[in-house]
Amino acid sequence: VKTQRHAESEQAAKILGAEIEFFDAGDYPLRVTEKMLDRLVDIYREVKPSFVLTHALNDPYNFDHPLAAHLAQEARIVAQAAGHKPDPARAYTAPPVFLFEPHQPEQCGFKPDVILNIDEVWETKRKAFEILAAQKHLWEYYTRVALNRGMQGGRNSGKAMTYGEAYQRLFPMVTEELQ
Amino acid sequence: VKTQRHAESEQAAKILGAEIEFFDAGDYPLRVTEKMLDRLVDIYREVKPSFVLTHALNDPYNFDHPLAAHLAQEARIVAQAAGHKPDPARAYTAPPVFLFEPHQPEQCGFKPDVILNIDEVWETKRKAFEILAAQKHLWEYYTRVALNRGMQGGRNSGKAMTYGEAYQRLFPMVTEELQ
Amino acid sequence: VKTQRHAESEQAAKILGAEIEFFDAGDYPLRVTEKMLDRLVDIYREVKPSFVLTHALNDPYNFDHPLAAHLAQEARIVAQAAGHKPDPARAYTAPPVFLFEPHQPEQCGFKPDVILNIDEVWETKRKAFEILAAQKHLWEYYTRVALNRGMQGGRNSGKAMTYGEAYQRLFPMVTEELQ
Amino acid sequence: VKTQRHAESEQAAKILGAEIEFFDAGDYPLRVTEKMLDRLVDIYREVKPSFVLTHALNDPYNFDHPLAAHLAQEARIVAQAAGHKPDPARAYTAPPVFLFEPHQPEQCGFKPDVILNIDEVWETKRKAFEILAAQKHLWEYYTRVALNRGMQGGRNSGKAMTYGEAYQRLFPMVTEELQ
Amino acid sequence: VKTQRHAESEQAAKILGAEIEFFDAGDYPLRVTEKMLDRLVDIYREVKPSFVLTHALNDPYNFDHPLAAHLAQEARIVAQAAGHKPDPARAYTAPPVFLFEPHQPEQCGFKPDVILNIDEVWETKRKAFEILAAQKHLWEYYTRVALNRGMQGGRNSGKAMTYGEAYQRLFPMVTEELQ
Amino acid sequence: VKTQRHAESEQAAKILGAEIEFFDAGDYPLRVTEKMLDRLVDIYREVKPSFVLTHALNDPYNFDHPLAAHLAQEARIVAQAAGHKPDPARAYTAPPVFLFEPHQPEQCGFKPDVILNIDEVWETKRKAFEILAAQKHLWEYYTRVALNRGMQGGRNSGKAMTYGEAYQRLFPMVTEELQ
Repeated sequence: VKTQRHAESEQAAKILGAEIEFFDAGDYPLRVTEKMLDRLVDIYREVKPSFVLTHALNDPYNFDHPLAAHLAQEARIVAQAAGHKPDPARAYTAPPVFLFEPHQPEQCGFKPDVILNIDEVWETKRKAFEILAAQKHLWEYYTRVALNRGMQGGRNSGKAMTYGEAYQRLFPMVTEELQ
Repeated sequence: VKTQRHAESEQAAKILGAEIEFFDAGDYPLRVTEKMLDRLVDIYREVKPSFVLTHALNDPYNFDHPLAAHLAQEARIVAQAAGHKPDPARAYTAPPVFLFEPHQPEQCGFKPDVILNIDEVWETKRKAFEILAAQKHLWEYYTRVALNRGMQGGRNSGKAMTYGEAYQRLFPMVTEELQ
Repeated sequence: VKTQRHAESEQAAKILGAEIEFFDAGDYPLRVTEKMLDRLVDIYREVKPSFVLTHALNDPYNFDHPLAAHLAQEARIVAQAAGHKPDPARAYTAPPVFLFEPHQPEQCGFKPDVILNIDEVWETKRKAFEILAAQKHLWEYYTRVALNRGMQGGRNSGKAMTYGEAYQRLFPMVTEELQ
Repeated sequence: VKTQRHAESEQAAKILGAEIEFFDAGDYPLRVTEKMLDRLVDIYREVKPSFVLTHALNDPYNFDHPLAAHLAQEARIVAQAAGHKPDPARAYTAPPVFLFEPHQPEQCGFKPDVILNIDEVWETKRKAFEILAAQKHLWEYYTRVALNRGMQGGRNSGKAMTYGEAYQRLFPMVTEELQ
Repeated sequence: VKTQRHAESEQAAKILGAEIEFFDAGDYPLRVTEKMLDRLVDIYREVKPSFVLTHALNDPYNFDHPLAAHLAQEARIVAQAAGHKPDPARAYTAPPVFLFEPHQPEQCGFKPDVILNIDEVWETKRKAFEILAAQKHLWEYYTRVALNRGMQGGRNSGKAMTYGEAYQRLFPMVTEELQ
Repeated sequence: VKTQRHAESEQAAKILGAEIEFFDAGDYPLRVTEKMLDRLVDIYREVKPSFVLTHALNDPYNFDHPLAAHLAQEARIVAQAAGHKPDPARAYTAPPVFLFEPHQPEQCGFKPDVILNIDEVWETKRKAFEILAAQKHLWEYYTRVALNRGMQGGRNSGKAMTYGEAYQRLFPMVTEELQ
């Protein structure tokens, strides 16, 4: 199963134009090691991402999701500690964090702060999604989610859109203009 | 007192480059009439504002603030009802709503979603503020608030700023790009 | 518009096998009168419903919805006050209250406590829904909601179902058996 | 002390007609091992319980309670992972979870969703309770809790009852009929 | 009924050593008039109470309770508005507000911040309570509440006490010493 | 860096008249060992503090803070377990816990329950603070926080004060008098 999942993930990443790195932690149960944290800190510092996407903070259906979110957050913080693997030349700013929508948002305390218009990339997303053969029953589910978030996006903005994604921000947005 | 407050408010508005319209409701206690709601609906439709600034939804220290926020919200909704003073030619989209920071944010359930960098307009804001002679004891208070929100803005974005304002969004932000 | 809505509502009620009574309050803005409250109290006492369905308690998009929910709740309570239109022969027990799902559940603080399997009545519901010509754009929206709630129902119960409705309970369920 | 507690628990279980299995973890502080999780997963799969009773999710007075609740939840999820000790013949559905009432419910964020009428089994419960000699001061406390929950149950349902237990559901109830 | 309630309340007030003033508002439904607010403002200014006791802010079982709490709060605020019936000689400071425990605390969002030891006055309270003949079924209920809050008070403080009352503070406590 | 921090902390403690003991855990990431918990339990039992000051329960900017708060709480509970290092002669009562104000209170779910007037000790606090050379940019920040909490304290109590500290209580206050 694991091998197949790896292959599928790599194929999906390719469609999305993404690089992927596996940590090879088991997920039933998922347990995080100091080595994983350390590697993720390094990745933050190397990649300097513009933003981070991770799971909701709570999810009574999936114990591995909040744990992964916790790891993503802790590594983000440790990465900006000057005292961790000190290097005066390093420039790193902790990026904004966005939580993506869980399967049952209200049970996870998920509240959308942002609706992202994904009309232009929907076809690509759907193709990547269809790689995950084991989750075929979820293809239609998440297509419906995207359509409904799209309609909500239209209602909130007054500009029609078809497909949307909902995100919760973990930190306040800093801006020079209200919009 | 009322006359003086009017004059001060007009002077402050002038400094800010704002137009002002008084509803002349008493505020101890503030009571909202259907006529005020109706007038505010018309203003929304005429002005078509890009966003609305109003009070926090709860404030155990100021019963008039949440009531004003409620009026601002209800008028915003009624304004988009085709059935209210129908006019097929009308184009109106309900604007985003931002709650500004109350005096004791935690007691009002206020949680900042946005920190606005106001460095460029700080001097103007302070001048407008200093018109309000009766609230002289608050000048320094709110200057400290602005400096501390500025430091928080810097911490959240990684880009230094001096003065900030905190806002809570009432509706999800709709966007084409995560940032 | 009002006449057409009346006609549609009556037609939909017929399909559902429901009786309907209009209070003829305007809805932009909706205002509740003592007479409406009084009439609703009488209806509770006459009908003695097994349960009540009403709107979510908060809805920043629809000020009339929470107000209607408030009326439904207050009338339910007044109906059991012995001192209101006293009648020693009256037997009335305040029924359970269920809030149905609003358009944007997370923005309304709506959290599902119950998922109702509606597979057997789906066709009827859809037919009733299709009467509402003005809300045609919502037909597909709510069909997707029903399909997704159905999948969630299956996930929560372990028994497959296709269409579901989500409800929030206002009061604890009293039962003789945990299930 | 431990020996005595074992004996008491077994005696109480006998009165209740329950089977009991000790994990022999210390509880000041309680620490959970992978072996315990693994054993609990097996128990879920063997017993296929109709529901699970566990502690509140938070309890600032008892650090072992939320930890036990976490273990109960995580094992419930792992038990349904096909990849954990794979066995194609296995049929297992994760059961509903009910949190029972902690000593100081409001401090633990406990909110009753269900009030269970326990009139018929009260005598048995009280007998089992009285086995726990060390907690004698709590016998009357929990009897009062049961009487007050009973009165609340009566108020919520309109049907008199004497003894009640309050539970919080962790997942939505899936049903074919609103009640 | 009203006459009897008046007489009982006066008798209970006498036992407690309290003065009482009736506003004679109906309570099914309770409606607040400007005159009541005005009278209550005057009372605040005359009595200058050390603290205020009122109902919980929400109560889905009793619509009159939150409304009374709202009135108590609004009058408290208006009382300190210099512009309302101006009198330069007036000295008035808005007092702390404590919410007492509702019948079903968790359903009302009630969270105890304070547990008051009432051992010394319990007998008096019980006597006052027993005047309310119509609520006889509640005597034992509230005695059990007092005993359980007493045991919680003992657990929180480490000093045994028998009877307690739970309160929620509406405003932060200002103090010169942590305790 | 660590050596310097130690020296500064000792110097600051001296100014405050405090004893200090270092646990020498790293803080990027902070990890708690059973030995630390055990030592902290002993300290509770030896010192029998009147109250405990610790960090907020959540802080998305500082993963070590909530972890330290968790340790402070768990040790406080274990310290009162008779079964942990039994000693019949021991007298220990778990003390009240106060959370001090984090850098961004609203992002940490921090809600002030107590405002402490620190006018008399402000000079000493500021001197201790100025020892922390690395956090020089925070001196003015926290001075502003103290001034604003002071003004809030004045507003809540009606008695002017200049410098304040805000605390959140973790447990209800037990008292013999409402104030």
